[in-house]
Amino acid sequence: MARAARLSGFPEWLPSDRIVEERVIDLLKHVFELNGFGAIHTRAMEPISALAKEGEIDKEVFAVSRLHGEQHDAKNPLGLHFDLTVPFARYVVEHAGHLAFPFKRYQIQPVWRGERPQDGRFREFIQADIDVVGEDSLPDHFEVEVPLVMAAAFDALRELGVPPVRILANDRRLIEGFARGAGLDDIPAVLRSIDKLDKIGEDAVARLLAEQAGADTRQQELCLALARIESPDAGFADEVVALGVSHPLLDEGLASLTRILEAAHRRAPGTVWAQLKIARGLDYYTGAVYETQLVGHEDLGSVASGGRYDALASNGKRTYPGVGMSVGVSRLMSRLVGADRMVAASRPVPTAVLVSVTDEDRRDESDRVAEVLRARGIPTDVAPAAAKFGKQIRYADRRGIPFVWFVDGETGHEVKDIRSGEQQTADPEVWAPAAEDLWPRVERVSAE
Amino acid sequence: MARAARLSGFPEWLPSDRIVEERVIDLLKHVFELNGFGAIHTRAMEPISALAKEGEIDKEVFAVSRLHGEQHDAKNPLGLHFDLTVPFARYVVEHAGHLAFPFKRYQIQPVWRGERPQDGRFREFIQADIDVVGEDSLPDHFEVEVPLVMAAAFDALRELGVPPVRILANDRRLIEGFARGAGLDDIPAVLRSIDKLDKIGEDAVARLLAEQAGADTRQQELCLALARIESPDAGFADEVVALGVSHPLLDEGLASLTRILEAAHRRAPGTVWAQLKIARGLDYYTGAVYETQLVGHEDLGSVASGGRYDALASNGKRTYPGVGMSVGVSRLMSRLVGADRMVAASRPVPTAVLVSVTDEDRRDESDRVAEVLRARGIPTDVAPAAAKFGKQIRYADRRGIPFVWFVDGETGHEVKDIRSGEQQTADPEVWAPAAEDLWPRVERVSAE
Repeated sequence: MARAARLSGFPEWLPSDRIVEERVIDLLKHVFELNGFGAIHTRAMEPISALAKEGEIDKEVFAVSRLHGEQHDAKNPLGLHFDLTVPFARYVVEHAGHLAFPFKRYQIQPVWRGERPQDGRFREFIQADIDVVGEDSLPDHFEVEVPLVMAAAFDALRELGVPPVRILANDRRLIEGFARGAGLDDIPAVLRSIDKLDKIGEDAVARLLAEQAGADTRQQELCLALARIESPDAGFADEVVALGVSHPLLDEGLASLTRILEAAHRRAPGTVWAQLKIARGLDYYTGAVYETQLVGHEDLGSVASGGRYDALASNGKRTYPGVGMSVGVSRLMSRLVGADRMVAASRPVPTAVLVSVTDEDRRDESDRVAEVLRARGIPTDVAPAAAKFGKQIRYADRRGIPFVWFVDGETGHEVKDIRSGEQQTADPEVWAPAAEDLWPRVERVSAE
Repeated sequence: MARAARLSGFPEWLPSDRIVEERVIDLLKHVFELNGFGAIHTRAMEPISALAKEGEIDKEVFAVSRLHGEQHDAKNPLGLHFDLTVPFARYVVEHAGHLAFPFKRYQIQPVWRGERPQDGRFREFIQADIDVVGEDSLPDHFEVEVPLVMAAAFDALRELGVPPVRILANDRRLIEGFARGAGLDDIPAVLRSIDKLDKIGEDAVARLLAEQAGADTRQQELCLALARIESPDAGFADEVVALGVSHPLLDEGLASLTRILEAAHRRAPGTVWAQLKIARGLDYYTGAVYETQLVGHEDLGSVASGGRYDALASNGKRTYPGVGMSVGVSRLMSRLVGADRMVAASRPVPTAVLVSVTDEDRRDESDRVAEVLRARGIPTDVAPAAAKFGKQIRYADRRGIPFVWFVDGETGHEVKDIRSGEQQTADPEVWAPAAEDLWPRVERVSAE
């Protein structure tokens, strides 16, 4: 069961739900590694000067200082990273001489934002990022590969009872070129306005476009018409063309997004949709942008987002263009184990077998049985006290441990499945639980 | 290869060494879970009031504040946790109604200390903790179980080339009872002095005992004589008794440590030693204390420490006594992959197979082969560009990827082991690499 932590915005799970979270993370890692992404882990802190670069983000940063700091600390103040992209960019520049490009990495760590907590939004949360970064250039096909790897990762999560996803793609150049072609110049204002569409609706976006981007009625309608376009394949392009706007950057974006949709449609039909209202808040994207909906849970917001960036990382001499996506693991968890629980672990402990203790003086016998079972890969606990067997069985029952082992030098060993009550003689060198009982299972909770 | 990060005290590893670290963590987790410890993950921040409780530790705490914080933030300032025990204690009290006691948990996360960085000491480092916590009481046998689980965990690490360990045990009551029996009352001063023995030597400790604990010559000599005692079994007790000091608390400590050494000696001879100079810095231990030496690397300091605490966690009505140990994962890593590298990954990427691309127009064919291999659990990458095959083979070679796959619709598929140069026809539905090539291996680096 999930419990609200006393510090708002800092989710912590009970042990049974941490099993769910670990399983989610393990499956993501496995798919990322199958696709050639290697793990890195970066420090939690970066210079605030590096974190604050991204315009408005600085208000969300947690600053860090030593309680009894020395003078020199103040010269280079540090903050906690608010995503894994900025530290990754720094890591790439710092270690470039020791990396082989294109460099494919994944990274699963907490990040921190000083935002007001709300449903699915936290002050500390775990992200799982994949990025491919090139040195000076990066082939376009990675803009197909990254969302398809992410789709494969979510596909792996379905065995846990996670709903299917739909990845939504757009291209920054497409929006920018369209806006410029329609006669609008304040592109950040256009992006910010369209980005609010799901939250505030078309009328309010039209007003924002007027107020902040100086759009007249025709321009507002063109932008809204663009934002309404979506398709499960490359069909979106004809609809854009039909709007009658033209600009070289629009052509570039259209061609690129078409390529992505065609390749995705060939390789994994129905997985990636073009949805032209996707804008993404962060400044650094320069090509494809992605969001990911959990089908049936669109209200949760995107569970995996990202895009192409051409100039995030640079050391002055070389640039490191990249494309990546980031899973909001904590956001996903908040839905999986939240108020309307969808997924649960079959027990809150790893333990499959509890070895009972007949007498404290004979604890060694129980410990020896446990050692044999563990050496054979069976997670085993020994009863904490030589209480009456009924109490030892209740100890197992409270924890969902399916088997209780009885040690007796005279009559030999017996093991009881406390769910069925079935008890049988057993040899610790040979007996094993059914495969599905060996470790906790993580499964969809059936609807009631 | 390890590289010094530009921010001193914040270790970051290159991808090949992160493979080592992940393998270390995976093996620790596996052994902890085999022994019935479940995972939890706590937030990185605690109220500074909770972190500063432990006397002198407050100077090491990193305080956290929102860059553009609001008034109410200042009322309850937060800091980054400096260990995993304090957050665990808070977690236990906060969630007690939802936990089953004795509660066995492990926790592997970074911790932060504002200390001056030095060899094996960092400002951000990963710890791996196990603790058993009872409600109001905790059976003594867990003081044997915890160091033996830790010994089993280090034993599992030996397959990676990690040297064997020796766990050193003492008991706080033994030292305190001995000091009181010898007529000394300022126990914290005695503990602090003895704790410095390895760093400053006997003469300096004698002076400290005189200056800070008011010890006369006889008392100094008694303390040093006690601190010299060590044994691989319960033999230490006779040596202590021979010193002629008596006190009820000393008897209690002697009996308890004897019980631990006897049980450990029966279950895993030679693993746990009594070493009576072990004092531990932190205030909260009340019984057994442990340190762990990497044999042949004693200069590194303890790689796993802990002890018994009776009153760390309490909600006023109930107390939660516990016993635990904490592995310094980053400290261990600093030796394994540091200047005198002991351990290395066989390649810096997960990938076992690189599928080459004959022509960009035929990239789909290569992608399809890769999908088939991945679906069969084989980590596979596709060449980033349809360059000359020599260049694609060098791409694999630079990353240590052992196999390159050639796709040809006419002549069929071939796979080349680029280490031997051997090339053979292959079916992606059937072919598999040798088991030892499937994932990167982590192995001892042979001495040169």
